[in-house]
Amino acid sequence: MNYSQMTKEELLEEKSKVEALYKEYQDRGLKLDMSRGKPSSDQLDKCLPIMDVLTSKDDYHASNGFDTRNYGLVDGIPEAKELMAAIMDTKAENVIISGNASLNIMFDCIARAFCFGIMGSTPWSKLDKVKFLCPVPGYDRHFGVTEHFGIEMINIPMNEDGPDMDMVEKYVNNDEAVKGIWCVPKFSNPEGVVYSDEVVRRFANLSPKAKDFRIFWDNAYAVHYLYDEEIQILDIIEECAKAGNPNMVYEFASTSKISFAGAGISAIASSIDNLEDIKKTITKQTIGPDKINELRHVRYFKDKKGVLEHMKVLASELRPRFELVNKILDEELKGLDVGTYIVPRGGYFITYRAKNGCATRIVELAKEAGVVLTGAGAPFPYHKDPEDSVIRIAPSYPSMEELEEAAKVFAVCAKYATLEKLIED
Amino acid sequence: MNYSQMTKEELLEEKSKVEALYKEYQDRGLKLDMSRGKPSSDQLDKCLPIMDVLTSKDDYHASNGFDTRNYGLVDGIPEAKELMAAIMDTKAENVIISGNASLNIMFDCIARAFCFGIMGSTPWSKLDKVKFLCPVPGYDRHFGVTEHFGIEMINIPMNEDGPDMDMVEKYVNNDEAVKGIWCVPKFSNPEGVVYSDEVVRRFANLSPKAKDFRIFWDNAYAVHYLYDEEIQILDIIEECAKAGNPNMVYEFASTSKISFAGAGISAIASSIDNLEDIKKTITKQTIGPDKINELRHVRYFKDKKGVLEHMKVLASELRPRFELVNKILDEELKGLDVGTYIVPRGGYFITYRAKNGCATRIVELAKEAGVVLTGAGAPFPYHKDPEDSVIRIAPSYPSMEELEEAAKVFAVCAKYATLEKLIED
Repeated sequence: MNYSQMTKEELLEEKSKVEALYKEYQDRGLKLDMSRGKPSSDQLDKCLPIMDVLTSKDDYHASNGFDTRNYGLVDGIPEAKELMAAIMDTKAENVIISGNASLNIMFDCIARAFCFGIMGSTPWSKLDKVKFLCPVPGYDRHFGVTEHFGIEMINIPMNEDGPDMDMVEKYVNNDEAVKGIWCVPKFSNPEGVVYSDEVVRRFANLSPKAKDFRIFWDNAYAVHYLYDEEIQILDIIEECAKAGNPNMVYEFASTSKISFAGAGISAIASSIDNLEDIKKTITKQTIGPDKINELRHVRYFKDKKGVLEHMKVLASELRPRFELVNKILDEELKGLDVGTYIVPRGGYFITYRAKNGCATRIVELAKEAGVVLTGAGAPFPYHKDPEDSVIRIAPSYPSMEELEEAAKVFAVCAKYATLEKLIED
Repeated sequence: MNYSQMTKEELLEEKSKVEALYKEYQDRGLKLDMSRGKPSSDQLDKCLPIMDVLTSKDDYHASNGFDTRNYGLVDGIPEAKELMAAIMDTKAENVIISGNASLNIMFDCIARAFCFGIMGSTPWSKLDKVKFLCPVPGYDRHFGVTEHFGIEMINIPMNEDGPDMDMVEKYVNNDEAVKGIWCVPKFSNPEGVVYSDEVVRRFANLSPKAKDFRIFWDNAYAVHYLYDEEIQILDIIEECAKAGNPNMVYEFASTSKISFAGAGISAIASSIDNLEDIKKTITKQTIGPDKINELRHVRYFKDKKGVLEHMKVLASELRPRFELVNKILDEELKGLDVGTYIVPRGGYFITYRAKNGCATRIVELAKEAGVVLTGAGAPFPYHKDPEDSVIRIAPSYPSMEELEEAAKVFAVCAKYATLEKLIED
């Protein structure tokens, strides 16, 4: 039953069987979505008690006596800094709190570098060329930001313990145009890779050719475990300081997938000097973030322990979804040699690696059968997967019933596209 | 008792009296603040019922069926667009909703122009010179943004019905480097000027030399009446469209001084084409604003009528503060020829015009007596009041008791500084 070992006739016969099955699904007029890492309604319902901690009867003063209802505190209330620092395993003094979308902080870091430079460096808008390293597969929205700024993006392959550090060192230490690298160090988007201590230390010990090189460390899934365990990564801020590169990293996190995707709080963590540099601009940009929402989050979660307890509740929604997709892919695809997949220990995605040249076709087939997947190529700069192989599956949003159908459709499409390819070759 | 008509001896005698009074205040170790247009605690308390409309028991779907708790809707929920449009007297289709600080939208408009240009124009970062017109006195944070970007700021005098339009037309229609003008068209910050229909129409009929010239129309006090009346200004977006300049204006508003200064919602209003141009960037910048807070605002206020009713409640906190300062200034300063002041019909400030050359000294004297005022020069680009005359008084924040003392101290300082000046001259 291994497709690679089938004769042409066997392949054609199998294809006609799979095609019939595919047509059946197609005729059912499904409308399913496994494209975005969005929480499900069930998961959001589990967060609703957050909405009860601040009413007209409550006190709105922060721990420093500041009235959160009023203007001011451009970097956030102290207890929100404590909470977000704990989530990132760093110190509150290294944190600035911002609005609901951490992507916005990342974008602003790049916009600031373009308009004003970093710590007195030449504004990037004045340079002929700016390059970013992009471990692939990676987060499509990261690449969307750098593409929007016209930054040249360079693919860096991912290993099982993080990006290919030989290649990262080669670029960063030798090319002054390389100003940044996108990293999701824990449960990377989409593969769920956790950076090893060695990788983190090699990052911290880079010797960038460009003084204004920054690691964009998007710690998006810092507490997003699917199982009852804690997986630690090293604190990059501390490691950079130890290595004599205190200002080399901007770290980001948010509660988007802890509280509400549409109404959380976010944070940047970095060295004091970087924060001072950033504050020079944000004190002009805003009178302050939404401090009531900061207070609401702290009053509800209290501390990291509270967050971790809550994440177990969310995991009870997420884990069955991941396991269901895994089970169906096992049942439908095991032994066929059509692709590989790993269900991670945390994060929001399952990465499917199809045979080279099949990913676009699988996504296309799924779409025609009513199942929306993230576009093939999306996890790569310029939407170009050089091997047309990677598909990001997002199981978090659909209901279990929908997910079961969607995963089955996916499996049929994976088989179908592989058969087409093998027959064609 | 008119200081200007006193002999030198009379002035010296009066000065020693005023000095004694000043010393008395100084000895009392006051700690008062009339520097920022912040709401008082009493005013914020009046907004607390807003916090009760969304609890864990409520439904979180917007009018278009969208779950506000989740990702998405980068331009905001439909009913929030309706509400903010109504506040600005424009149409919902012309509105994008954003986070809590409208200053942030304004900053981002300029940052976008620097990084990407406007509708295909050369990015401002690539130009040798970018200039903004600044009606003065104006809002210090506006000027702070343009100064931060290295934009050359040109003072435009304010008349009783808006900026000197002859001068505005001269600059805008002839100098391609002039890319924008800061306007607060209703209850201008700080003078409380309401732009006349003629002024609005002259704005709409500008013929900018620069295609990417934009009017930055900060409608910050659109419903912020101190008295039971409605004062209308023309809809600049409609007027620009009528005049064949549909894309010439960015309008801004927020609920910062309607709901919570630290946790409101904000909006930009503009032509559909401008909004499309803006969305090209914000779809990369963020996954969306805080939609739960949008829903909270709409559920509470419902519509413009609801907002206006609420603003009457806030006016009942604000009006007595403005009238108290007015009364004390009348009692203490009338007939002395030391300065002029007007209590506006809306907005957040009283503008005091001291005799030329006295403003800095008044602010300094007040500070030494424990009363913080907005720095002299703050309402001008580069903090430079060419006549050293204007002082922005913010009566909204202190309690009535504090305000009474602060206003009395102010009056003494105004007298003292004028006497010093007259004696010196």
